[in-house]
Amino acid sequence: MERIESAENKRIKLAQSLLRRKKREAAGLFLVEGLRLAEMAAESDWAISYGLVTPAFRERERGARLLARLSEHTKLYEVEERLLRKAAATETPQGILLVVEERRFALSELPPTDNPIYVLLDGLQEPGNVGAILRTADAAGADGVLLTRGSADPFGDKAVRSAMGSLFHLPLCRNLTVEEVRGFARARGLRLLATALDPTAQLVFDEDFTRPSLMVFGNEGNGVSEELLEASEKVYIPMAERETGSPESLNVAASAAVLLYEALRQRRYSKRQM
Amino acid sequence: MERIESAENKRIKLAQSLLRRKKREAAGLFLVEGLRLAEMAAESDWAISYGLVTPAFRERERGARLLARLSEHTKLYEVEERLLRKAAATETPQGILLVVEERRFALSELPPTDNPIYVLLDGLQEPGNVGAILRTADAAGADGVLLTRGSADPFGDKAVRSAMGSLFHLPLCRNLTVEEVRGFARARGLRLLATALDPTAQLVFDEDFTRPSLMVFGNEGNGVSEELLEASEKVYIPMAERETGSPESLNVAASAAVLLYEALRQRRYSKRQM
Repeated sequence: MERIESAENKRIKLAQSLLRRKKREAAGLFLVEGLRLAEMAAESDWAISYGLVTPAFRERERGARLLARLSEHTKLYEVEERLLRKAAATETPQGILLVVEERRFALSELPPTDNPIYVLLDGLQEPGNVGAILRTADAAGADGVLLTRGSADPFGDKAVRSAMGSLFHLPLCRNLTVEEVRGFARARGLRLLATALDPTAQLVFDEDFTRPSLMVFGNEGNGVSEELLEASEKVYIPMAERETGSPESLNVAASAAVLLYEALRQRRYSKRQM
Repeated sequence: MERIESAENKRIKLAQSLLRRKKREAAGLFLVEGLRLAEMAAESDWAISYGLVTPAFRERERGARLLARLSEHTKLYEVEERLLRKAAATETPQGILLVVEERRFALSELPPTDNPIYVLLDGLQEPGNVGAILRTADAAGADGVLLTRGSADPFGDKAVRSAMGSLFHLPLCRNLTVEEVRGFARARGLRLLATALDPTAQLVFDEDFTRPSLMVFGNEGNGVSEELLEASEKVYIPMAERETGSPESLNVAASAAVLLYEALRQRRYSKRQM
């Protein structure tokens, strides 16, 4: 394994630059840190540009196994822990860091599926929420995740960690305009569905989730943008009333879990079709 | 309003000390930062020991309204922004910081309720997950939240922020042993229910959530502890199978949202009793 000694090496510099969103978008690359996530990247069919590993990592049994697998397709470099840390977002990158090629889909390239459910993140700010919703969408069998322009970057380190590998399972389209989203929904016959506290909203458990749908989840503070809200059917998630004060709302990642699993229940486990 | 000028003032020192868990537990006090959370503290009936506010905060209309309300029961002090920041966990405490008295319940003091659902957090490490589950438990109408000894502190700043005021709505019992939890479940006639990937586990949608229950959610990496798992009925949340790789599991806060809302659906919105 080739060894990199200098912090000025171009592969260290490149990895380091990917800590910034602009550089990630320009290069079409992002970072994957840590053993478990690196294993999941290796299990996926995403292209890995190169990897940086520490000598200690090579000596671990699970580490050596992963490196044997990675080395079939990927160039690996040995670096000292202190060099690795320069290019890592976490303080303990666990001895491995991969530079992975982002897989970009245009909306028109999303593979057609039978009776799809897509998730749209509309201006979400918290990378942890973006990652958590990706993970839930993956688990609940959604067909893809779309993000509007103002949303947090799903390829940033915190989102990548929260998504726990689900990033590699689902097609993602990002930096979308509302017009593009509406055009996609029309072209694919999807109705837009947004959670809202609105007198016309339907109780989530009475909604028919068996139809092809695009579920819209909005910004943590301001909810779904006006333009998308107007184009959407609205559902509400009920909140308990308490003497001690009423809950404000659910966290957006919790809302997504409720809707996506209610859809799965109706589609796969409900005896009566609604 | 009395003014504090020195970083050595005992109220600044005390607030600062509450950034540490040990100090919070010893003093029985915790910090609430920011306008919205401070409003929620004021709306609750929790005792507020004192508040620190900046001159700029007093000039904002919403700020002045809140201070008028707070000053009926609470001593308030004016401090400069730089002093406030010394005692705050966030970089932008938005001009207000309250020192609030923790409300402590022994298990035996939890008010008896009709057909209760309690949530038990067993060794959760992420304060963000603790706060998110509190918020969901509040919204879904749970009767209280219990935490075992190894769990993250629900009164730490990140958990308080994630809980978005739900902290003030629900009784919390923390630092519990497994024995205490099991004794409580016996005394109140609660069956323990844990999510698990186990051949004996029941599909979440087939489980009967209409019975009095204690839902157990485990550590992010290791799940529910052996001792509690053995004493629990097990349910599983289904995961989609994909050609591109299978999702590992749900995030614990997403699991909690699925279970708590399935319980609410069965209890309040299902036409057939299961």
